[in-house]
Amino acid sequence: MEHRLDNFSNYLKENQIDMAFLNSTENVFYLTGFHTDPHERLLGLLVFAEADPIVVLPGMEAGQIRDAGWTHEVIGYADHEDPWMMMADKMKQNGISRVKTVGFEKQVLSYGRSESLLSLFDDLSVVDVEGQLNEMRLVKDEQEISIMREAAELADYGVKVGTESLEEDITEMEVLATIEYELKKKGVAEMSFSTMVLFGEKSGQPHGNPGNRRLKAGDFVLFDLGVVWKGYTSDITRTFAYKSVSDEKRAIYEKVKEALEASLSISKPGTRIGDLDQTARDIITEAGYGDLFPHRIGHGLGINVHEFPSMSHLNDGVLKEGMTYTIEPGIYDPAIGGVRLEDDVLVTANGYETLTKTPKDLRIIE
Amino acid sequence: MEHRLDNFSNYLKENQIDMAFLNSTENVFYLTGFHTDPHERLLGLLVFAEADPIVVLPGMEAGQIRDAGWTHEVIGYADHEDPWMMMADKMKQNGISRVKTVGFEKQVLSYGRSESLLSLFDDLSVVDVEGQLNEMRLVKDEQEISIMREAAELADYGVKVGTESLEEDITEMEVLATIEYELKKKGVAEMSFSTMVLFGEKSGQPHGNPGNRRLKAGDFVLFDLGVVWKGYTSDITRTFAYKSVSDEKRAIYEKVKEALEASLSISKPGTRIGDLDQTARDIITEAGYGDLFPHRIGHGLGINVHEFPSMSHLNDGVLKEGMTYTIEPGIYDPAIGGVRLEDDVLVTANGYETLTKTPKDLRIIE
Repeated sequence: MEHRLDNFSNYLKENQIDMAFLNSTENVFYLTGFHTDPHERLLGLLVFAEADPIVVLPGMEAGQIRDAGWTHEVIGYADHEDPWMMMADKMKQNGISRVKTVGFEKQVLSYGRSESLLSLFDDLSVVDVEGQLNEMRLVKDEQEISIMREAAELADYGVKVGTESLEEDITEMEVLATIEYELKKKGVAEMSFSTMVLFGEKSGQPHGNPGNRRLKAGDFVLFDLGVVWKGYTSDITRTFAYKSVSDEKRAIYEKVKEALEASLSISKPGTRIGDLDQTARDIITEAGYGDLFPHRIGHGLGINVHEFPSMSHLNDGVLKEGMTYTIEPGIYDPAIGGVRLEDDVLVTANGYETLTKTPKDLRIIE
Repeated sequence: MEHRLDNFSNYLKENQIDMAFLNSTENVFYLTGFHTDPHERLLGLLVFAEADPIVVLPGMEAGQIRDAGWTHEVIGYADHEDPWMMMADKMKQNGISRVKTVGFEKQVLSYGRSESLLSLFDDLSVVDVEGQLNEMRLVKDEQEISIMREAAELADYGVKVGTESLEEDITEMEVLATIEYELKKKGVAEMSFSTMVLFGEKSGQPHGNPGNRRLKAGDFVLFDLGVVWKGYTSDITRTFAYKSVSDEKRAIYEKVKEALEASLSISKPGTRIGDLDQTARDIITEAGYGDLFPHRIGHGLGINVHEFPSMSHLNDGVLKEGMTYTIEPGIYDPAIGGVRLEDDVLVTANGYETLTKTPKDLRIIE
């Protein structure tokens, strides 16, 4: 973590930013190694261009960040104390008096907390540092990749459990409960988002909610799930046919698979990121399903289940070795159901590797 | 929902606030009846002093908010569109030209989104409307209470499942997985926070994380869990002894129970809210455990698992019929373990009712 902190502090110095106030669970974890979500209570990491960093967090968690290896200053506050005043006092003690420019995570920091912080100094000007942290987090190091491999393996396992639990008349929620139960037994404390298990016509809703729909022969079964593992996420989607599949549904499936594979095949260092969406979208559009693919091709993946890079067709950035993201084309027909297939992708020196390994050929589950 | 929207619009009018921009899943749900979390995508509800409200959300969810009964305008945007410009255009179309004061949820709206919104109009001044919404949400109506009763019953059920699954050498995570599995089978899609199952000395950490600690005779077993049910939350804590209990541990348990009951006994309309914390704290402090009770007595409960009222000893507000909150005193001894007991409380016309019903006498599980 120390070299990340040093890099970030150097970035502040080079950009004449005196101080950054970081407020997100994710960036605090990235820079300190300590993962916590104190809900409505304040968590903050102050990083300075020219001074040692300070963490501020609820007093009852002060011991835990020490256990996680944090050796710099900690302000642990009680519920009745004002952490903003404690920060101001600590900075004064540490001789930090001149702060003219502060960096925020503009998409994270609340308007109210920005007011509290801005009131501590006169005439502060605000810049965004979220972009820099997103940039730092884009390329994963060895240790991060190794954790993400484990996270993806657990997602594959979730899909396996799901397919094995399918039987006539079972409900979406029962399958969902079985998947999460087995993952929890493997030590997964948290899913990376609300697990999706959708049957039949419900798979035709890109953002449908699992419920009491019962499984029938001829249904599509769509799983979309992921885990949080040692602070990193995974996210897989697979769609299966139960007992049988109509020609119409098979055509949709094959087109989604073709789009995914086309987008995977150009995943390598140097590719324009927006081309991944465009390639898949062109295939789906040419087949006449363009209106049934209403979302981006994917999203960056890491500490957040949705992070940078943005996988929109507008992104002119280029892929680099070590980037991780999802590719997840879909075709959603509200009448007959939908198909989405999603892999977690790591860009390698010469191409790509899918971290998720569940096969993608259409499988009819008996 | 319509009367809530009308009330809020009237509040804006009375306070010369031309428009409010609401961004939280919770307040949008409270005012529209539609519950969604579009993650990093924008969800917004524009409420005006003098015009019809407008919802802005990802296009793929536009149909769902209609299904939920929303009859006013909807702006559904695609990923490549700019929802801020679409809002500006729609307001222009609707003849809304003069906006001088805008209300935010200051603790929710990000600094970045405040910049986007503020750039749509010249010289906007900002006020907070979160306080008003928190105020409106403080007192629950019949329908809300009836849902919260169901949510609390499911939390009780979770504790029952947990106690029934205890056996020598089982791990915290195995018990946790069993609880959540059984709740999911009852249709619970989401827990209201990360379920806590802590054994032995780990129960002595107020914010400990469940892991592979195995259950042994003489351990405390602490459950802290809740569900999200039809948009509302529950939150229960119970602590049990496994096989046996030392006198030292029994003393802690009885003191926590005494503190909880004292705090419950003064729960009725007219009581100063801060007295609930103070009453429990005095009992724990007089018994010499004051340093081992490092958090507030509880928190408001409703759509959010932590909402208003703040149950700190500093709160000079008074209880009203229909308010709902938790009371959860605890004593945490890092060496031998800790006890926390928590009920969900509804203030009634003459006193209180606990929505959580699991008994609180010390139970030694064989």
